Amino acid sequence: MQFFITGCAGFIGSNLTDRLLSDGHSVIGYDNFSTGQRAFLDSAQKSSHFSLVQGDTLDVSTLTTAMQGCDFVFHFAANADVRFGTDHPRRDLEQNTIATYNVLESMRANGIKRIAFSSTGSVYGEAAVIPTPEDAPFPIQTSFYAASKLAGESLISAYCEGFGFQSWIFRFVSILGKRYTHGHVFDFYKQLKDDPTQLRVLGNGKQRKSYLHIEDCLDAMLIAMGKANERVNIFNLGVDGYCEVNDSIGWISKTLGVTPKLNYTGGVRGWIGDNPFIFLETKKIRSLGWVPKHSIRDGVIETVEFLKVNEWVFEARHL
Amino acid sequence: MQFFITGCAGFIGSNLTDRLLSDGHSVIGYDNFSTGQRAFLDSAQKSSHFSLVQGDTLDVSTLTTAMQGCDFVFHFAANADVRFGTDHPRRDLEQNTIATYNVLESMRANGIKRIAFSSTGSVYGEAAVIPTPEDAPFPIQTSFYAASKLAGESLISAYCEGFGFQSWIFRFVSILGKRYTHGHVFDFYKQLKDDPTQLRVLGNGKQRKSYLHIEDCLDAMLIAMGKANERVNIFNLGVDGYCEVNDSIGWISKTLGVTPKLNYTGGVRGWIGDNPFIFLETKKIRSLGWVPKHSIRDGVIETVEFLKVNEWVFEARHL
Repeated sequence: MQFFITGCAGFIGSNLTDRLLSDGHSVIGYDNFSTGQRAFLDSAQKSSHFSLVQGDTLDVSTLTTAMQGCDFVFHFAANADVRFGTDHPRRDLEQNTIATYNVLESMRANGIKRIAFSSTGSVYGEAAVIPTPEDAPFPIQTSFYAASKLAGESLISAYCEGFGFQSWIFRFVSILGKRYTHGHVFDFYKQLKDDPTQLRVLGNGKQRKSYLHIEDCLDAMLIAMGKANERVNIFNLGVDGYCEVNDSIGWISKTLGVTPKLNYTGGVRGWIGDNPFIFLETKKIRSLGWVPKHSIRDGVIETVEFLKVNEWVFEARHL
Repeated sequence: MQFFITGCAGFIGSNLTDRLLSDGHSVIGYDNFSTGQRAFLDSAQKSSHFSLVQGDTLDVSTLTTAMQGCDFVFHFAANADVRFGTDHPRRDLEQNTIATYNVLESMRANGIKRIAFSSTGSVYGEAAVIPTPEDAPFPIQTSFYAASKLAGESLISAYCEGFGFQSWIFRFVSILGKRYTHGHVFDFYKQLKDDPTQLRVLGNGKQRKSYLHIEDCLDAMLIAMGKANERVNIFNLGVDGYCEVNDSIGWISKTLGVTPKLNYTGGVRGWIGDNPFIFLETKKIRSLGWVPKHSIRDGVIETVEFLKVNEWVFEARHL
């Protein structure tokens, strides 16, 4: 299979690239390197089955040309900065919603009809049902990021109905592991690197969040694509549990051997649109035989260990 | 109150303009006249409390200037051609999703924080629960129109959370009555005007649809805005029942005194993305004391009577 991956130099995209290549597939990767890292493609670049196109998902012409001859598209390129939506609402609209439209139109131009999409558990807003199943009550959006991702899901579904596309849409919790470059572990590590005696924690630290290890995430996506064959296949991906931000702070601090004073900004939310309790029901993906192999604690510790030997990522991008 | 209405020359927009003026409010109307009709504003133009700005919702500069000094925005401008989404998917993205973003940004620039939005019952896709309540299971989109309207809803909700906006989002069934200029009654009338002996019917005629009279629709919106005070207020608007397309054909034919031969294109759907059964649960709006005064049959007949004395609308636009 010839796969096309937008955001191939990102956290999930680069890990998926490596996995598909090691499984014997060919990959054309597409990235504008706005947040993706060339170093994450070092391994892929050694393969004759990998080729890289530097381009933006807002550049339809380059995108359409790059996609030629592919069988399947993973659309992972996105603005993933959930926290700062109110600083620049246009960014989510362009980089997530319009970009997804461009990917779909490029697929149509090339006669490619299968797509996997990285959505988010944030589309459930402040969910009325927890753990939250895929068919939860129709939610109200609370962040620009989730609104733009739901718009992307909706466009994909309309292309499935209107143009005979087939899709696998994954609503992730936050992902942890090798090449992780944003989110709370990243932020806390960065702070503790600068000053191990203090840690500023957004909210009251009691926000309950669920996390998934990147390798479990890749397993789940590939199992879903192999076994689920509806026109639109929507799956929650997450572990069967959650932790408090405070738990995570404990694991991070212990791994780093520090005991910072915790300064809470207060309130149940870390930022506007933050969801104080994210926990997805994952019966649907589990029914296909998938079982996550890593706990949240393992994921947090492994992420810290990755950051310890890759501190260059803090210089490479500024969040 | 100084109201701003996008799509003020459209079916719903022009009727609302008249209603607000007669209730003693001021209205600034905004329309690009791509489908809106100047004649629909004849009555409004006689009022010193009405002013019209010709402009496009994609022209942010004109939009932002026009909105100055308003207290409340009704965002009704949209591409409403549900049936032809696959002919031009970009149109729904631009005229519905991006236009809604522009309206929200113009509001933000002007410090206006309250918005009412015309969404659609089509966002429920092929609903799993009928009659369909506002908190129905998270649906999968089946049309570009609905996908773009849901994207609009989601953006509005994110602005409510992120920027303290307040919104009233109305998921309409199809609306009937004076100034109706698209949809099945329009299409059937047009066909029968050209040839009263034959009628081409998309699908098998057994599609079950619900319709609401424009005056009942206006009543419902104004009641909701007066009585519902959540941050995001979502209401289904429709009557407590439905008809078959075949019922409607009977009423139209009888009103026109014709007995056409019916040529069905076949299948349960009229077009790609058509929903064969639309029936919304309206308990939520009824709980505020709203009761529709017109039956579907009355609405269909009144619409035919309007078209009979306004056949110019068939020349004015081509659907």
